[in-house]
Amino acid sequence: MSVAGVGEFGLIDRVTARLSYGPTVLLGPGDDAAVVAAPDARVVATTDVLVEGRHFRRDWAGPHDIGRRAAAANLADVAAMGAEPTALLVALCVPEDVDTGWLEQLADGLGAEAAGVGASVVGGDMSASPTLTIAVTALGNLGGRSPVTRAGARPGDLLALAGRTGYAAAGFTVLSRGFRTPRLLVEAYRRPEVPYPAGPQAARLGATAMIDVSDGLLADLRHMAKASGVAIDIARDAFEVPPQMRDAAQALGVDPYAWLLAGGDDHALAATFPPATALPPGWRAIGRVAVGSGVTVDGRPFDGPAGWDHFR
Amino acid sequence: MSVAGVGEFGLIDRVTARLSYGPTVLLGPGDDAAVVAAPDARVVATTDVLVEGRHFRRDWAGPHDIGRRAAAANLADVAAMGAEPTALLVALCVPEDVDTGWLEQLADGLGAEAAGVGASVVGGDMSASPTLTIAVTALGNLGGRSPVTRAGARPGDLLALAGRTGYAAAGFTVLSRGFRTPRLLVEAYRRPEVPYPAGPQAARLGATAMIDVSDGLLADLRHMAKASGVAIDIARDAFEVPPQMRDAAQALGVDPYAWLLAGGDDHALAATFPPATALPPGWRAIGRVAVGSGVTVDGRPFDGPAGWDHFR
Repeated sequence: MSVAGVGEFGLIDRVTARLSYGPTVLLGPGDDAAVVAAPDARVVATTDVLVEGRHFRRDWAGPHDIGRRAAAANLADVAAMGAEPTALLVALCVPEDVDTGWLEQLADGLGAEAAGVGASVVGGDMSASPTLTIAVTALGNLGGRSPVTRAGARPGDLLALAGRTGYAAAGFTVLSRGFRTPRLLVEAYRRPEVPYPAGPQAARLGATAMIDVSDGLLADLRHMAKASGVAIDIARDAFEVPPQMRDAAQALGVDPYAWLLAGGDDHALAATFPPATALPPGWRAIGRVAVGSGVTVDGRPFDGPAGWDHFR
Repeated sequence: MSVAGVGEFGLIDRVTARLSYGPTVLLGPGDDAAVVAAPDARVVATTDVLVEGRHFRRDWAGPHDIGRRAAAANLADVAAMGAEPTALLVALCVPEDVDTGWLEQLADGLGAEAAGVGASVVGGDMSASPTLTIAVTALGNLGGRSPVTRAGARPGDLLALAGRTGYAAAGFTVLSRGFRTPRLLVEAYRRPEVPYPAGPQAARLGATAMIDVSDGLLADLRHMAKASGVAIDIARDAFEVPPQMRDAAQALGVDPYAWLLAGGDDHALAATFPPATALPPGWRAIGRVAVGSGVTVDGRPFDGPAGWDHFR
């Protein structure tokens, strides 16, 4: 049945009936607002919106994966502050002919990605709209730690990465050219694997700065370099081109380093640490912070594409 | 200049430069997430989305008023829990030909409505989209009080209202028929006057249930009656038809009580109180809670329109 047939309140009932609530939820959906635990008297909050045709396509990914991605984009921002996600709120704008089953699976995907990190979908809103749009807000708990901003990187710090880069961008290119394989890359585009626990872990290790890699490593490190007033140099050797990516790059005539260094949407975490920090498994060194400004690769400007701007 | 000309990051810089931050903001926009004070270790959170053509029209209201309305719809939900708003997050989807000046005024409107209650815009996201959409999330502080839900009304309680109803609906009807006056009604549609402090005030007075009147008084009281397992009866005499509304209703052939009892978007607050409660100025008695179910007017079902469903 289409969403227009069920109506706003019927839809909200159907969707909330599928959700489950963790211990951070003091009052769940169904009232004017939810109430969420904020144990250390602060709450981390971030919002990210996905627009059909720009951030996702219904013929490229199913509703469950689109829900996971919408949740992941926000949960990763919470992790990048060094916090643990607690709750999601979701504002859905839906064309009237969308099937309720599609929406229920979207809600399941949102709920599943949240549940994987101990968070819950606590509230939302729904409206008809000609453009399918998913606006998500994520809340998180710093557990008494200071937030790790983009602004604390210091010359001499080592630069490290948790998670992978380039996979989602490669998957996006593959799909754009009309292919459905390699599966590894297409699946990475459909459903990012975000190293959420690495965020609070980095905060506990004394990370001086941290950022979620969503626009591309170079673009996001440029934000960090600017906010911190430093230069950042990436070691190209720190990135290995996996075989499937090498093959796809060759077949499509793409430089795989453009994917690895400038591709977004895998939601890796990049952080800087004091030079003597022993990195735990999950984090690997990929460069250095120096005096100066801007981001370089092996000391030189990178000549591939720079990143992603949602208006260009 | 159009938003496409300025680009995503240029736009975000322009908008955040216009905002100011209150004491609840521990870390403002510009990082992966904001950090907001949650003094009693809980945070109230709610989200509401406005879609062009469905919730607003650019030819019916200017960007500053649209911003105020988008903020008000969310801040009122926080107040309806008995909480004080602390922060807003805004996800904006904007057609590429929208002028940056329009967006700056929208941001000013959002910021002004928030500042009026001591809250700040702490974060956001922006994307191009064919459909202009404003998704707002509001956070709030309960100040140690219990949240006032929709579910606590008890037979014998008195029903009271803070703020006005029917004005925005009358203004909407006036604009729909191609008129621009009476000014009082049109302005009420463009910019709701929400009685925010009445929310925490009701909580301190011992309100047993409370709801933000956004879908229409009858529709929203129906939610309250259902959640509380009670019947609610409204006294028609408690509503006076103001002269401008009476004249407009006559000219347009509308029953003014359909506006007063079923019109949404003024964001009045309706609450139930123990029978002996002395209502302070700003709150007025409009009915009673009884054993049973459903909502009546002077003991009978209301035969006008029932309320607003965003898919119908």
